[in-house]
Order: sequence, then structure tokens, then C-alpha cells
Amino acid sequence: MFESAEIGHKIDKATYDKEVPALREALLNAQFDLAEKAKFPVIILVGGVDGAGKGETINLLNEWMDPRHIHAHAMSERSDEESQHPPMWRFWRALPPKGKIGVFFGSWYTTPIVQRVLGKTKNAQLNKSIDDIKRFESMLCNEGALIIKLWFHLSKDAQKKRLKSLEKDPKTRWRVTETDWERYKQYDKFRKVSEHTLRETSSALAPWVVIEGTDAHFRNLSTGKILLEALSKRLNHTVKSHTETVPPLQPAIDNLDLFDKLDMKQQLGDKRFATELEKYQGKLNLLTRDPRFAKLSVIAVFEGSDAAGKGGAIRRITGALDARHYRIVPVAAPTEEERAQPYLWRFWRHVPRTGHFAIFDRSWYGRVLVERVEKFCAEADWMRAYSEINDFEEQLINNHAVLIKFWLTITKEEQLRRFKAREQISFKRFKITPDDWRNREKWDDYQAAVCDMVDRTSTDIAPWTIVEANDKNYARIKILKTLCARIEAALESVKS
Amino acid sequence: MFESAEIGHKIDKATYDKEVPALREALLNAQFDLAEKAKFPVIILVGGVDGAGKGETINLLNEWMDPRHIHAHAMSERSDEESQHPPMWRFWRALPPKGKIGVFFGSWYTTPIVQRVLGKTKNAQLNKSIDDIKRFESMLCNEGALIIKLWFHLSKDAQKKRLKSLEKDPKTRWRVTETDWERYKQYDKFRKVSEHTLRETSSALAPWVVIEGTDAHFRNLSTGKILLEALSKRLNHTVKSHTETVPPLQPAIDNLDLFDKLDMKQQLGDKRFATELEKYQGKLNLLTRDPRFAKLSVIAVFEGSDAAGKGGAIRRITGALDARHYRIVPVAAPTEEERAQPYLWRFWRHVPRTGHFAIFDRSWYGRVLVERVEKFCAEADWMRAYSEINDFEEQLINNHAVLIKFWLTITKEEQLRRFKAREQISFKRFKITPDDWRNREKWDDYQAAVCDMVDRTSTDIAPWTIVEANDKNYARIKILKTLCARIEAALESVKS
Repeated sequence: MFESAEIGHKIDKATYDKEVPALREALLNAQFDLAEKAKFPVIILVGGVDGAGKGETINLLNEWMDPRHIHAHAMSERSDEESQHPPMWRFWRALPPKGKIGVFFGSWYTTPIVQRVLGKTKNAQLNKSIDDIKRFESMLCNEGALIIKLWFHLSKDAQKKRLKSLEKDPKTRWRVTETDWERYKQYDKFRKVSEHTLRETSSALAPWVVIEGTDAHFRNLSTGKILLEALSKRLNHTVKSHTETVPPLQPAIDNLDLFDKLDMKQQLGDKRFATELEKYQGKLNLLTRDPRFAKLSVIAVFEGSDAAGKGGAIRRITGALDARHYRIVPVAAPTEEERAQPYLWRFWRHVPRTGHFAIFDRSWYGRVLVERVEKFCAEADWMRAYSEINDFEEQLINNHAVLIKFWLTITKEEQLRRFKAREQISFKRFKITPDDWRNREKWDDYQAAVCDMVDRTSTDIAPWTIVEANDKNYARIKILKTLCARIEAALESVKS
Repeated sequence: MFESAEIGHKIDKATYDKEVPALREALLNAQFDLAEKAKFPVIILVGGVDGAGKGETINLLNEWMDPRHIHAHAMSERSDEESQHPPMWRFWRALPPKGKIGVFFGSWYTTPIVQRVLGKTKNAQLNKSIDDIKRFESMLCNEGALIIKLWFHLSKDAQKKRLKSLEKDPKTRWRVTETDWERYKQYDKFRKVSEHTLRETSSALAPWVVIEGTDAHFRNLSTGKILLEALSKRLNHTVKSHTETVPPLQPAIDNLDLFDKLDMKQQLGDKRFATELEKYQGKLNLLTRDPRFAKLSVIAVFEGSDAAGKGGAIRRITGALDARHYRIVPVAAPTEEERAQPYLWRFWRHVPRTGHFAIFDRSWYGRVLVERVEKFCAEADWMRAYSEINDFEEQLINNHAVLIKFWLTITKEEQLRRFKAREQISFKRFKITPDDWRNREKWDDYQAAVCDMVDRTSTDIAPWTIVEANDKNYARIKILKTLCARIEAALESVKS
């Protein structure tokens, strides 16, 4: 969920100063239309890591917008009167009426998340709260509200730096309290609970938008642009109903994404490769012959750019396995029978029983990759696919599957080199088609889809492993190592 | 949930024999259209009390419909292969493709309900399963499926009779097993868990329909008609999308409803009334002065037919209360400010703090009564109101409110008598308006709406009390008694 918000998004001052005046004007116009014509309530929720600029952003919104039609509510501890009413009472009181904007700084998410982090509630209670919140928000949407949920994120390091720098400046020292440092110590717990909560409540109705909070220019400009986009979409009726507002998960107004942070130069010499290959293939073989393996299943998913080397990597795995126990599932266009069923049906067919190993050469992620980019399905369909996929994978894992997902990535230049090479070598010529060249033209769209995919489906229980695959040796060993480590960990947790 | 399925619905043989041929023909035609033109999958779930005729009904459907396009799946214990896969795997395998009908006898509801009844899981796990089911069914609907969920119900007595009569007949004796009698012993637990599960999963997308299982003719005809109605609606596009199929909660094809079972002749003489009034007003006064009362709030809701005597009953209560601690909230048309907010907002405003007593003269139930009958809001809006109201009331109760809901009912004749009397007495003339006469013309629509309301919102924690109000004395004492009993029970549960 937070992967794309830890890569150092930044906007320089010149760009910022140039863009802000037009943005402010557009926001004011949208706000005027909202108040005078459109008549629906706008609810902005602001949450996130301490020190990530939540307060500053709210101040900024108040400054940029017409204060008669926007109201910010800082919801901290409950007052006497408030605690004599149900917890949601104070939020109901503060809901903006039609035509107005209400900003909630501290929202119905705060208590469930904080209580869980502090260990005052258990997972079951957190999940109950999440369920309540989902029904509440769905009611608001049905009543016509536009809900915009912003989460300001900082990596652990960035939070530390931020708190320290606030402390150093005499003008801001007062803003850092004891509590802030205590919360910092709980960072990992807080991150885990928030991630779970955000993922579960990121419905197509009201998805969360995560904004990296390190750079103020980036943060402010992102917030303003997201708000403007969501408002304009509803005001201009380019979305058919209030159930179809889909802002991007991560604003990337600075054109920086996950892949920019990878070291694509990593490689492995042939000799070293041969040694490692033997070592990890042997290990993988041993692991799958462990008696406890009968209680598990392994599902390895291979996705990646065209020509990134999925096939070659898969062959290095199957070379270590007993043919009776594994199955490669190549995923192509659905058959007629499959088209007559819900999307995930064709993958359920190939779910392995325990003791078995399934390798998916492409997978259910096609929905949010090729089907999204090529517009083979409606936006609403691929949007809901994220949570359907998370549900599906949760079921696999609850049934003792070890689910290992690889994204093989190569640079655009390397892809070109490989395409051209394929055209030269006769026995590889079948591997390059006009489709490949067409897909290549949409390189940026695919990259954006991959980033959203990783952000939305890299869960604790089923994380993505991004494999730098410009060097085939390096990629193959990284894959084998990851497989061995994950299977080994799973075997250890099997009660024998 | 089951109130309307315990009143002895019945269809006589002559009517049955007359109606069946046309129904069968219509069903076959609908099935043909489904297979040839419409191309969406139909999923029928069949659940309910043992002995309520689930099996017979499925046999009947197989007999009535074209067997090439309908498939029944009896899902009992998981096979070896099935238990080596995630629990949902076998249901995915059995899903009907587009154009076909799949009947599930024993569905994804069976295990969660049975496990909870047997005490093998806790409430938290049941609720997690419910949440999973809701997401699964919402996915199916988004994929275009029509889901029809039928619950065959028997009262405890009826189940006992049914099992005994099956045992007596040598031809059916084999059908009653040890397990059936053991389950019968768990009837109350089973009913409670099922009721909770059904209410939580009765979404506007895929609501449950409860069918009383005592009389085979009624059961069969209801099932056939519900199926036909749901199919026709989708096939003829009278519903705009698959998210708008709303069958009636309880089929009342025999024109029998909850009110037919009430004894409307109950009355109380004036002398006895005076004694009882003094007794219960005194008791109520004492209860509200109990120190533990400060930790509670009381919310009394009065709904009822026009001229049923709500005002008079309320005055008998307030006569016993300290004016500083209660408030009467008369609910009329919403103000302009209220119309700019979500529906429940205007009731949230009047939620009392602890230590206080609020009496709602009409309430949030207007949404599913007058607004439904008079079409002041869309069907989708009042349909979703049931669960929104249940959520709202759950929050009140979690905040230590004692929620007591009265429906005051009078017969149509008694209403006429009162209307006429009001017109005669000058100081009561303001109480009778043309609106009252207009509402009276829609008597049957209102009665149907009330039955659905009771079935969908009479919960364990917030039950409806139906008050036979033809005799005002009787009604007022019944109300005071109920109030005292509920408040007394709540006080006892307060930790002092």
C-alpha cells in the first residue's frame, strides 16, 4: 500500500510557484459550482503518519478555498458530552450539508487504528470496526456524498528526520510532544495496522489515496490536484454516478515511480551463476521432498514485461521439481467456457491441492494489467478486482498455500534489444509478435498499472517480489532464492 | 426475521391445482429466454430448518423446469479432494455458467452457521465468514449473476410435529436421523444464529426470502412464484441493473399476515386500568430515579396506524417522568436543513445522552412506511434503509440505550369509528385531515410495509412490541408494563 509513497517524491519550488495560481483558481471555481449548482456534500478525510503534514495541508486548503463553504473539524479526544453519546454521534453532527465541504482531521478511522496499535483491541474488533465503517461510507455515498480519503505517509526514517527537524527549530519545537516520540516507537505496528485498514476500506466507492508527506510542495500540489480532479469529475458528470469516482491510488505528479528506485545494473557472472543454480535447485528439491510439504501447496505467480524472461526462470524452477507434483499453468485469453463464468473462475480451476506446486505463467493479475490498459474491461471491473484478488489470495493462504508473486522487470532499452535479437534468431522468432510491439508503445501505461498493482496487492501474507531482470543470471537466482526462503519459512511453521 | 413465517400460511389443494400449470409454463418460458437470449447465471441458494421441505422443493424445481439448464448440487461434507482445497473451491467448481440455473442445497452459509451453533466457532469468526460471504456475493452480482436466496422456516413446534409425522410414516421414516433430533434440541441456538446471519447478509443485492415450510402447497407455490418474478424482472429489464432485484421478504400469496394472528379484542375495564396505571407509573418513576439510570438512556419509539392512540399513550408515560430528563421528539416532514443531510441525520440530532429519556412520536421508520408507500423515495433507498436502521440502532444500544419500539395497531373498522368521532368533537377536529382519509385508502399497502418492517428490524437487541390498541386502556398498560420490564432488566445488567 505504501510502496510508492517511500520513493522520495519531490516538486521543485519553481514548478510549484508556477502551478499553484491556476490550481487555486480552478479549485475556487469548482467550489462555487458545488455550492451554487451541484448540491452534493464533499467529505475529505485526512489521516496518516504523525509529522507527514496533515495539519499544514488542512491549513492550506482553508487558505486556498472559500472559507464560507469549507469547514475543518479537528477530532481528537471525545468531550464529556460526546462520550455520553455513541462514538459516531460527533461525526454525524459535523457532516457537511449538500453544497459544502467538510474536512475531518482525525476521522472515524483514528480510534479503531490507534486502539489496535496500543493493543487495547484485538483483530476481531478492528475488523468489526472496519465493517461498520464500510457500511457507513457506503450509506454516505448512496446519499450522494463525494468522499475523498487522503493518507499522508512517511517512511520510518523520514518520520524520524521530520520529528528531529521540527524539534531543532525553536519556532516549531512545541509541535513535537512526548506522544509523538512514543508513537514513533510503534511505527511498525502502526504501519501494519494502517495498511490492513486502508486496504480493507479502499472500496471502489471511496478509495484511499496515499500521498508521500516528505516534500511540502509535492504534498500540497498532489492534494490540490486530487481534490480538483474528484470535484470536476462529479461536477461535469463525466462519472455516471457517485459510485464511480476513481482517483489514482498514488499521485505521481513528479513522474517518479517504484521502478525508478531499482538498481537495474545488478548482475551475476556465469561461473557464480552455475554454482548458485546448483545450490538453490538442490535446496528447492530437498524442501519439496520434506514430509511436511504434504501439508502445504506452493503457488508461484510469474508476471513481467514482455521478454523479461519468465519462461527461462520457470524452467530453472521446474528443473528442480518432481514432475508428478508440479504443474505449469500458462494463462492466455479465456476460453468460451471460461468467459461464461465470473472472472476468477478460470484460476480457481487450477488451484493446486496440498502437496502440490502450481506455477502460473501470467495470472489473475491480467485483469489489472493488460485488461486495464487495453480497456478489455470497464474501469469499475478492474477497480473491484484488486479487493477480489486480495480475497482470493487470502483463501489460498488460509488453505496453507505458499503464494509467491514475481514481477520481472527490464528497462525499455533492454526490451528493445531483446525484441531485435529475437527477430534475428530463427528458433526464437515465434516469440515476437506484432502484439509485443504494440504493447511496447503503451510502456508508460503498463508501468503505471504495475505500480498500482503492487501498491494494492502486495500484502503481508502475499507480498510481491520485484525482480530486476536485465541480467538473466541475476534474476533466476533471485527467484530461486526467494522461493527457497519462503517455502523454508512455511515448512518451519507446519506443526509436525 | 421469521415473524411472518410462523403464522400458518396455507394454500388449499384446489387453488394449488389451478395455479400450478400456468406457473410451470411461465417458468419454462423464462428458462428458455434465459438460455437463449439473456445469458446471465442464476444461483439459487436453499437453506433453512430441517424438515421444512428443502429437499422436496428442489425435487419439484427439477421436475418443473427443463433439466438441461438447471443443476442441483447437494453440498454436504467435504470430500477428500475438496478438503485439500480452500473451502470455497467446491462452490466455484459448481457455479452455473451464463444462461444456466444452479441450485445449491447446502451452500456457503451452511458451515459458518452450523459451526457456530455447535460452539466450534465464536461470534467473531461467524462475523468474519459473513463478511467474506457478502464480498463473494457482491462479486457474483457484479459479474451479472442473479442470486435468489430461499430460507425454509418452521417454528419449533412445527419442526417437532414434522419430524414426528415423518417418523410415523414407514415410507418416510428413513429420512429422520439421530442428527435431526439432535439439531432439534439446538433449535433456539440455530434460530438465533440463522437470524443474525440472514439479517446481515440480506443485502439489497441478494436479499433472503423466508418461506414458511409447514404447508407444501404454500411452500411450492411461493418458491415457484418468487423464482418466476425474479427471472422475469431481469429478463424484461424492468430492473435497470442486477443490483436492483428486490423480491418481497415474505411471500404472502395466501393473504395472511402478522396482524391476522393478533387478538384485537383484548381490553381492560376502567377501574382495573386506574389501579394498574398508578402501579406502573409509580414503578417507572422509581426506575428512572435509580442511581444506575445515569449510565443508561431510554429511547422509546412510537409508530402506529393513524388514530391508534400514540399521543395518549405517550402522555401516560411522561406523566411519570421528571421533565428535566425526558424529551418528546415529534417527527414530521424534514426541514430544509435536514433535507441537505443523509436520511438518518435528523434522528442522530436527537439521540439522548446517558441519563436521559427520549420519546420519538414517529421515527426513522418513516423511511420504510410512509416514504415507501407514498413513493417519496426510490425503492433502492428504502430497501437499504433496513440495514442502515439496524446499524443505527446497534450503535445506540452499544452506547447503553434501552431501545423500545412500539407499533400500535387498530382494526380498519376501529379506525373508521375514531375518524368519525374526531370529526364530531370540536377540540379533536384538528386531529383529522384529508391526509388521514387518503392514507386509509392505502390500508393494505401500509400493512404490508409494517410486516416487512417488523420482519427486517425486530432484532434480539431491539425487538418490536406490537400493541393491540383497539382498547385504549389495554394498550396504555401494555406499553407501560413493557417499558418497566425493559428498563428494569437493563438496570440489573448495569455494573454498579
